[in-house]
Amino acid sequence: MAEIPASHRDIVENSPVVILATLGPDGRPQVTATWFLLDEDGTVRLSLNTKRQKVKNLQRHSEGTLFFIDPENPYRTVEIRGRAEIEPDPDYAFADRLGAKYGADLRTMDQPGESRVVISFVPVKVNTYGEAAGQGT
Amino acid sequence: MAEIPASHRDIVENSPVVILATLGPDGRPQVTATWFLLDEDGTVRLSLNTKRQKVKNLQRHSEGTLFFIDPENPYRTVEIRGRAEIEPDPDYAFADRLGAKYGADLRTMDQPGESRVVISFVPVKVNTYGEAAGQGT
Repeated sequence: MAEIPASHRDIVENSPVVILATLGPDGRPQVTATWFLLDEDGTVRLSLNTKRQKVKNLQRHSEGTLFFIDPENPYRTVEIRGRAEIEPDPDYAFADRLGAKYGADLRTMDQPGESRVVISFVPVKVNTYGEAAGQGT
Repeated sequence: MAEIPASHRDIVENSPVVILATLGPDGRPQVTATWFLLDEDGTVRLSLNTKRQKVKNLQRHSEGTLFFIDPENPYRTVEIRGRAEIEPDPDYAFADRLGAKYGADLRTMDQPGESRVVISFVPVKVNTYGEAAGQGT
């Protein structure tokens, strides 16, 4: 499994959102920004309502790409190409962990009858651009 | 042709880079950040060396997506899904205009024998997220 190199790990730690690219039904990439957790095992995980188009895209075609930009330097970026593993989160166990990071209650974002999944990203290739942490511009 | 709404045009004007998603030969989205010009006709244009993977991707599959994040508020974004039109730029006419925006000479970025193209993005669908310019955070 590919890993985020230490030189650029700060970008993932400091980014307020991750940019997620999935493949839409029309063959075009769909790109959105969303909340994420860099979990203790080094995996990037998302919590999404199954009504969202990006979830439907990943259910149909699990290959997707995560992209992070250093909030302080747009020339430092990390691209993680990989495969999304989707699991139900009926009791909001993961959603509550993600909510704690952002100071939000994700339960309030769903309507009755809607469901939420955890998306864990298995990296296949990691590309970094720009200087290593601490090398400054 | 889809247009960038006035409510979110400031994001495109103020972003230091555009995030470009193309479709790689393995079927995964490739995502990178790159320089761009919002041209006078409202078209977003890029200048790229033809050796770059993203150019090869667009030559093979012209559907791609541009994504902009408000540098001051990561919850304000613009997604432009569209089609890339690729034209040669042998005399650096466009590359020099882009270089003027960034204070750089793109001629110095290419090796002898390499060539550069202008990529003009024809929007098919534009999605915006977050508040309109001047509203709130």
